[in-house]
Amino acid sequence: MKSILDYETVALVDEDDAIEIIDQTLLPGTTKIIRLHTGQEIWDAIYLLQVRGAPAIGVSAGFGLYLLMKHSKAGSYEEFCAGLKEKSDFLNSSRPTAVNLSWALNRMEKHVKDYYESLDKDADFAETRQKLVDEMRDESERIKAEDIDVCRRIGENGLTLIKDGYGLLTHCNAGQLCACKYGTATAPMYLAHEKGWNIKVYCDETRPLLQGARLTAYELHSAGIDTTLLCDNMSASLMRTGAINAIFVGCDRVAANGDAANKIGTSMVALAAKRYNVPFYVCAPTSTIDINTPTGADIKIEQRKPEEVTEMWYKERMAPEGIGVYNPAFDVTDNELITGIVTEYGILRAPYDVAIKELFNKE
Amino acid sequence: MKSILDYETVALVDEDDAIEIIDQTLLPGTTKIIRLHTGQEIWDAIYLLQVRGAPAIGVSAGFGLYLLMKHSKAGSYEEFCAGLKEKSDFLNSSRPTAVNLSWALNRMEKHVKDYYESLDKDADFAETRQKLVDEMRDESERIKAEDIDVCRRIGENGLTLIKDGYGLLTHCNAGQLCACKYGTATAPMYLAHEKGWNIKVYCDETRPLLQGARLTAYELHSAGIDTTLLCDNMSASLMRTGAINAIFVGCDRVAANGDAANKIGTSMVALAAKRYNVPFYVCAPTSTIDINTPTGADIKIEQRKPEEVTEMWYKERMAPEGIGVYNPAFDVTDNELITGIVTEYGILRAPYDVAIKELFNKE
Repeated sequence: MKSILDYETVALVDEDDAIEIIDQTLLPGTTKIIRLHTGQEIWDAIYLLQVRGAPAIGVSAGFGLYLLMKHSKAGSYEEFCAGLKEKSDFLNSSRPTAVNLSWALNRMEKHVKDYYESLDKDADFAETRQKLVDEMRDESERIKAEDIDVCRRIGENGLTLIKDGYGLLTHCNAGQLCACKYGTATAPMYLAHEKGWNIKVYCDETRPLLQGARLTAYELHSAGIDTTLLCDNMSASLMRTGAINAIFVGCDRVAANGDAANKIGTSMVALAAKRYNVPFYVCAPTSTIDINTPTGADIKIEQRKPEEVTEMWYKERMAPEGIGVYNPAFDVTDNELITGIVTEYGILRAPYDVAIKELFNKE
Repeated sequence: MKSILDYETVALVDEDDAIEIIDQTLLPGTTKIIRLHTGQEIWDAIYLLQVRGAPAIGVSAGFGLYLLMKHSKAGSYEEFCAGLKEKSDFLNSSRPTAVNLSWALNRMEKHVKDYYESLDKDADFAETRQKLVDEMRDESERIKAEDIDVCRRIGENGLTLIKDGYGLLTHCNAGQLCACKYGTATAPMYLAHEKGWNIKVYCDETRPLLQGARLTAYELHSAGIDTTLLCDNMSASLMRTGAINAIFVGCDRVAANGDAANKIGTSMVALAAKRYNVPFYVCAPTSTIDINTPTGADIKIEQRKPEEVTEMWYKERMAPEGIGVYNPAFDVTDNELITGIVTEYGILRAPYDVAIKELFNKE
């Protein structure tokens, strides 16, 4: 088995007019690298979760929009922009609730327009079109490079919180498979492993969709890290044994007071961590910190379909017909349970409202 | 669908020389009542978990030993006892770690010997044998009646902690399916439902074996109780919404200081309950209180096989090959997280060491 670190989760193969991804729907059983050529293939890959995770989706969308415009035959800037808008809307419809998808597409569109302003309007449009397309390629590669840079810096900051020999725990997948390289919660782990440190990582399986078992355990194990799987209800028992020295989780959104929304179950890990005095760190690119959301109570929690709990991962229905199902996608971890928020600019500490305000003033 | 309360989990059908059970391996999809006639059938039913749960196993063993001796042709008391010992050892080998199994078999054997002391030693042994056998039937029915009585009294005591309209949460299956009637953690729920109270019960699915999804959700729903399933990592999120007014769980063993060992994950429910000020009750027949175990730290926690986590409930392996698995069967909930311990003699409150000592002195 090759290491996950030998791949990039999403890569542009320009000479083949393709995006190369690891088909995540086949993990952990099969590692299959596939290339997406057509708009429909890219759309399907996002829709079917062959590629998933906010940063990876954003990068895929950037590459996708570039590839779909690469061979544009538009005879005018207006025609080019109309095509751009159409392709962008098409890709955006693959997963409308994924914020990074529309963010990346908007960034690409806006960049085309800004860049066009700097060009000679009297030039032959075929030449201009080529410049626009080349610039789209560069911008999409920049989106990816920025993501890798942010993850790497989160990893370096997180590494200061780890020592050789540590036992670490994570929940869900905030790993390389949801970004392009390193991931967020896993970045300190990969960097520790690269240094030759002997760490042991425990992964919550993360019901109902088992991202911890299928993805995180897969990628860490493939990288040669000592990896142990546990059910979500076992982490307190494990912390009680003293096996865990620190916890790193990702996040979907951090409120202005430091409350953090992340995959359902994260707050229960944090409660156990508090009980057993294990430091609990949230890894958060500053792009996930939303200063317009005052507290965790202001974060709307999506309810997902009952079948995820009652059917998806079993040979047959594993609960009786006719019962209700409570299936929230996320929960909120209160700021007082969080030991530190690891960003690409450093580690924020309580009081988080002050630390976050300072961070955004500096930026 | 008939209600679970229309059945008894284990019943003696004396006229058919059989034990009648609900085959729990087919739940929740199929409700199949089966009769066990031969020693091998009874052994298999315990071994294969067609009947499970400490009290239900004990009752099955009592009935089983009676049925296997019912048609004894022994010509002497010594021969009868030799047969009794042989059958008892055979049944005991079906699940050697189940304490209630050996407890019930020992009780039956001892009762035969005590009862024999009261009989006329000069009587014809065929007559004596019939008396011994009849007494075995009565003793096995007493084991069952005592279990039902204990569960009912736990239910009545627990009912004083509930009000009409309450939302309740439970973990794993401490239900009728592991006893004969009412169960322990579910007993207050069934009694509230019988009173016509409108309660809403939430069941943790309880990974890795999903007893909550497969058994508890099944039995409560079949009884007509408003039942909602959730994954184990969702209970804190649910308590945060205010939906839960009280929590009832069973237990495997309570230490002399009130620390309680129960199905893995119970302590994480208790931590969330503390956080959100939800009363957390442990339902414990006094037979599970072990005054010879000083604290929870003295309770040995069994580790179970990795495949339960990585394979059992999925179409294919749901985690990569080669990883470690942490799979403890139980965890310990510290006494300070427990609002009350509901026994058949009343509700114990902290300080539990004192309350438990008093209870045992009274008994």
